[in-house]
Amino acid sequence: MCQKQLCGGGSATKKGSCFHVVCKWRAQFLKAKMGANHFRFSNVSRLGTHRHRIEDPVQPSFLCSQSLGNCLIMSQPVAQEILTELESLRLIDPHTHINPLAAASETLADVMGYHYYTELAHSAGLSRDQIEEPGISPKEKVGRLVPWLASMENTVQYSWLLEMCQTFFGFCDERITESNWETLYDASLAKMQSPNWEQQVLEQSGLDQVYLTNDFDDPLTGFDTAFYVPCLRTDDLVFHLGKPEVRERLQKCTDVNLDDSASMKDALAKLFAHFTENNARACAISLPPNFAPRAVPASTVDTLVGKVFSGTELTESELESLSCFVFWSLAELCAEHKLPFDLMIGVNRRVFEAGVFQGQDLYDKRVSLIQYKELLNAFPQVTFPISVLSETSNQELVSYSWIFPNVVTNGHWWYSNIPVFIENHTRARLQAVPKTKQIGYYSDMYKLEFALPKFAMYRRILAKTLAQDFVVDRGWSVEKSVELGKLVLRGNVEAIFGPV
Amino acid sequence: MCQKQLCGGGSATKKGSCFHVVCKWRAQFLKAKMGANHFRFSNVSRLGTHRHRIEDPVQPSFLCSQSLGNCLIMSQPVAQEILTELESLRLIDPHTHINPLAAASETLADVMGYHYYTELAHSAGLSRDQIEEPGISPKEKVGRLVPWLASMENTVQYSWLLEMCQTFFGFCDERITESNWETLYDASLAKMQSPNWEQQVLEQSGLDQVYLTNDFDDPLTGFDTAFYVPCLRTDDLVFHLGKPEVRERLQKCTDVNLDDSASMKDALAKLFAHFTENNARACAISLPPNFAPRAVPASTVDTLVGKVFSGTELTESELESLSCFVFWSLAELCAEHKLPFDLMIGVNRRVFEAGVFQGQDLYDKRVSLIQYKELLNAFPQVTFPISVLSETSNQELVSYSWIFPNVVTNGHWWYSNIPVFIENHTRARLQAVPKTKQIGYYSDMYKLEFALPKFAMYRRILAKTLAQDFVVDRGWSVEKSVELGKLVLRGNVEAIFGPV
Amino acid sequence: MCQKQLCGGGSATKKGSCFHVVCKWRAQFLKAKMGANHFRFSNVSRLGTHRHRIEDPVQPSFLCSQSLGNCLIMSQPVAQEILTELESLRLIDPHTHINPLAAASETLADVMGYHYYTELAHSAGLSRDQIEEPGISPKEKVGRLVPWLASMENTVQYSWLLEMCQTFFGFCDERITESNWETLYDASLAKMQSPNWEQQVLEQSGLDQVYLTNDFDDPLTGFDTAFYVPCLRTDDLVFHLGKPEVRERLQKCTDVNLDDSASMKDALAKLFAHFTENNARACAISLPPNFAPRAVPASTVDTLVGKVFSGTELTESELESLSCFVFWSLAELCAEHKLPFDLMIGVNRRVFEAGVFQGQDLYDKRVSLIQYKELLNAFPQVTFPISVLSETSNQELVSYSWIFPNVVTNGHWWYSNIPVFIENHTRARLQAVPKTKQIGYYSDMYKLEFALPKFAMYRRILAKTLAQDFVVDRGWSVEKSVELGKLVLRGNVEAIFGPV
Repeated sequence: MCQKQLCGGGSATKKGSCFHVVCKWRAQFLKAKMGANHFRFSNVSRLGTHRHRIEDPVQPSFLCSQSLGNCLIMSQPVAQEILTELESLRLIDPHTHINPLAAASETLADVMGYHYYTELAHSAGLSRDQIEEPGISPKEKVGRLVPWLASMENTVQYSWLLEMCQTFFGFCDERITESNWETLYDASLAKMQSPNWEQQVLEQSGLDQVYLTNDFDDPLTGFDTAFYVPCLRTDDLVFHLGKPEVRERLQKCTDVNLDDSASMKDALAKLFAHFTENNARACAISLPPNFAPRAVPASTVDTLVGKVFSGTELTESELESLSCFVFWSLAELCAEHKLPFDLMIGVNRRVFEAGVFQGQDLYDKRVSLIQYKELLNAFPQVTFPISVLSETSNQELVSYSWIFPNVVTNGHWWYSNIPVFIENHTRARLQAVPKTKQIGYYSDMYKLEFALPKFAMYRRILAKTLAQDFVVDRGWSVEKSVELGKLVLRGNVEAIFGPV
Repeated sequence: MCQKQLCGGGSATKKGSCFHVVCKWRAQFLKAKMGANHFRFSNVSRLGTHRHRIEDPVQPSFLCSQSLGNCLIMSQPVAQEILTELESLRLIDPHTHINPLAAASETLADVMGYHYYTELAHSAGLSRDQIEEPGISPKEKVGRLVPWLASMENTVQYSWLLEMCQTFFGFCDERITESNWETLYDASLAKMQSPNWEQQVLEQSGLDQVYLTNDFDDPLTGFDTAFYVPCLRTDDLVFHLGKPEVRERLQKCTDVNLDDSASMKDALAKLFAHFTENNARACAISLPPNFAPRAVPASTVDTLVGKVFSGTELTESELESLSCFVFWSLAELCAEHKLPFDLMIGVNRRVFEAGVFQGQDLYDKRVSLIQYKELLNAFPQVTFPISVLSETSNQELVSYSWIFPNVVTNGHWWYSNIPVFIENHTRARLQAVPKTKQIGYYSDMYKLEFALPKFAMYRRILAKTLAQDFVVDRGWSVEKSVELGKLVLRGNVEAIFGPV
Repeated sequence: MCQKQLCGGGSATKKGSCFHVVCKWRAQFLKAKMGANHFRFSNVSRLGTHRHRIEDPVQPSFLCSQSLGNCLIMSQPVAQEILTELESLRLIDPHTHINPLAAASETLADVMGYHYYTELAHSAGLSRDQIEEPGISPKEKVGRLVPWLASMENTVQYSWLLEMCQTFFGFCDERITESNWETLYDASLAKMQSPNWEQQVLEQSGLDQVYLTNDFDDPLTGFDTAFYVPCLRTDDLVFHLGKPEVRERLQKCTDVNLDDSASMKDALAKLFAHFTENNARACAISLPPNFAPRAVPASTVDTLVGKVFSGTELTESELESLSCFVFWSLAELCAEHKLPFDLMIGVNRRVFEAGVFQGQDLYDKRVSLIQYKELLNAFPQVTFPISVLSETSNQELVSYSWIFPNVVTNGHWWYSNIPVFIENHTRARLQAVPKTKQIGYYSDMYKLEFALPKFAMYRRILAKTLAQDFVVDRGWSVEKSVELGKLVLRGNVEAIFGPV
């Protein structure tokens, strides 16, 4: 039973499964704006004194502050219509870090342990030892993070947390605090322990397919690869052959004796065979800002492969040649196997070494797609869905996608995955890149529960943009705008990576 | 006779030269927003069920979807007033690629053959061979491009095409498709074959003057240089003296025996004499991101000029010295002849070598105006209207124009010529650069028909910005805001390059 | 007595201390928008014909065009409520260039002599000799600048000037012109000559504390350091030890014989002792784009200190080592004395050497916070409030503050201190940086009168952002949004630098 005091003296009371409430003032306001006499209402804040009376049914979530954004966008009639249509669309999530053997969260610690929260808590003042102390219980971990949520309540990342708790766990307060978190913890635990929790989340989130990020030596067994779609992640192969454990893993899973360029190509070919046999839909890699791939003759690396696999340390420039050779070989295999090659450009690893787990990486915005000129010209037959980490790279991404048939814009990555950048980037892409060459969004999630609030955030921004730039500024019909929205939200994912 | 079904069951019927239509729902909506009882209406999309009845006269174009943007901006009363005022202003287009001997299009292929469309079609999947097959008829070419328009209908470039077809050729459909393009082609052909088509376009576009981009060896004859104003384009001189044909052209048109720095200066002086005698108003050049001009002593290049003109290949660094010398000499001649020197900063040529004609150039955003420090300090008496290709360069352009008396902001170039960037850049310039130092816009067009939709796009954005940032946020009167708009739209062009 | 003709035939007449005016049309308009029957009104521009009748009291300033922005934001009810709350907050200005012995202006020349105006006038065409001619009277100086104000009236900097004149000197015209400036000059002079002018300005501006920027050899005497808070400015120490006068000043004020790294550390320690004994709250420095601090072993610089202090010229690389050593030593002293270290990153000095006083500096946007990786990792116990000069650096600042506990976002600096950038940067910071790690704004002022219009500009933008991104998009209550606004506007200043 969820009871909520409304400002202006009104109050909302749960009647069975839904609330009844309306705000006289808002009625006038929305009527003036919408010329409509009926609308769902949610009270945002004291906008002058006003009374409340019962009117039409509203979902409980409408009274939870997070969902108001959603509701208020709706108060703009065009964006509302578009958003409603987009919400009816089931989704494919083309890039995640889901472990298909443990896809959903088991406790709230799996949700709040996501690096977005641990790093923000750490940044706000919670010590890394407190966060990562070995052997603490999930509940203990959540309990330690909760006091720090107040300092990050302004962030969009926190809004995802609140929306998850509201939608999945019936949480109705405005904030997660030291006084209400245990109730939330227990309620969420009960939910997550229900036998088919994973299915419930997928259903509520409307997910038809979830793409994975798999290590090159992943057996890809024990899960339905038609639903959890494998993608070959290649960072280790390109950048970490200097590490003994990486070399061992490669030798072990390919059973190739690696001593020259040819044997390296054999090993890589085996990985592609294994992945494509298991329904892999993409090869993916994240790249540092200073990387500029180039073709390196086999002869140059023959000795290097031998050297590194015999345990000899390579020089900076030898490592760079080897990285380029492996990277180029991967592109050749993508061509051969008709796999798109996801490039995630611009991350510097371990910049903040004392940072929490997965909270140590940053970047250098001084990167340009011109560094990929040789690659993009050499592989016209390979599709490169490109994500950029720096928001200052978006215009280059737009321009290169506008010119190069094999470049596709791909989502809003990491430090660019916040509303102000998504908004600007979405506008630029929709204004200048062929509509068939844009993958609107991916969640990058580690646990299933995150797809819902992240896609919801993107859909609201997409609906606003379509309403403003297309319906209002260019006079498109809502239908035509919704078509475009559905294409970037889902259609292109199937066209580029393959149908469900 | 143009008949258009309206959503919500209404329909618009042509009565003589105009339509009669109104939408009840919109009436309420706009009344609420404008507090006015009369307004022109255009129906954007189904915004809930509603009926239509005849009310006041509307221009046909108001019912063509492209023009709705225009109309809907008007639904914001302040922006509407400003836009109306700005639309009454006749224009000067200070940078185009018009061939004055064939300024207007002869067929729709001249319009759709513009590289914006061929490169977007190529990017979307149409092969270059199909687009550039020798000997195909104009109609055949258009027929091949049409099926690909659907994939670029979201782009602002496509919106220009639609607006041109609506305004010049009476096209009234929402899309150009495989089923309606031939009718459009024939209708447009009839129009373009009318004897005074060029004059009709200039009249409908309100153009008082069109600036050209002329090769250094252009005879500048056969056209009215008071209307089609010559500008000396100098890319070849600064960057391509390594090419035999360029050297020959220079020797031929100047009749100078080029063997040292002095003879090079003589040759350049002759070009300036020829151009200024023919009413040239500017010297112009596009520059790669890595160019950093510097003064090079004549002695250094004496041998280089001899070497290159004797056909000897120069080294990278010799070419760089020669480029700097020629560039610096051009700046000296601009000072002497009081010509503004248009700098278009940041393009890399032939990045995508398999691209269509004029669709191969991109850029590296890692460029800074600091590279022009020595130049800007050395030539206080030369005005440098500067265009930047990367949107990330706009703040530098704003700051340098705010500080350097000889730097002027110039339009929105190429990959930055899309609404989201124009909007942000226009706001920054109007907020921080003296109003007399801003050239608002140029079309960069290859055929006359493009000025109309491109300037229309800019005017809408300018009107919105003036309404929001000046009337609303700063309390300016509409009159004062319109004054400012007219100054950047035309006044400054005459003040900086010379009066009509 | 201030009388103002209103458009639409209405007029506003001063009744005692306030105006009475209302616009019928606006009444309908705002009613429709606000659902409220009472509101303060100010007429912006002719929005169709309309009549005026007396309604409720309005402050005089409401009729001066600058303040309309303020008023019109209020016409959006949510932003209005938030702005009103934020305006009730008294301020601390955490970074200024105030001379505490002459904090307020003595004549209008002190206001208009601010480099923002002299450089814009110079950029617009007024010669430096005219501006900086020795021995001209303040009134003469203002008289020479006035004719050039028209060319900069579009700039936000001009809007500050107008708002100062309206608020402090009762100026009521729309523009400062050659025909009204003398009246303004005399009126302002009378005001500024009133005995307690400094106190009046502080009162009207609501300032509780003003931070200074002090040379390292400032005696810090003759003023109340509890109100005018000292900050140790260290540019000279890090970058200008090559200059004899700097070395002399350092030796003189520390009385240390500087000949090796140890004596250098002694000297710096003495400066910190002197400043912290005098209530210093921060160490501050502005840094060129190419600076990348690193730890330099004492042994490396031992000889360098000796060399430079014996008058020997150092090489580029020796100077770089010395700069890094001194900078690193300052960071160590900040740690020891628990002082925040303000980093102002990205300025190139003397780019435009013929520029007016303080109007010669620009920048190179090609800078990255990755250059500070070693520093930020080495000093976890030092808080670094970071300001960036290039707007393209804001996302890096947001990301580094999100990850590094010791990085705090600090205001909107110089070329980024204009509405369009403040708006985008504020949105990004509020969406992704813990709320406790953001210092919203500082004025950077040279004279006290500037705090009022600059903070007013920031508050309006902050109120808009909170209304749109938090109340509307995320459903926050106005109260909660105001809390957040007050935290970034003042709360964090006290938390980070110390309480009033």
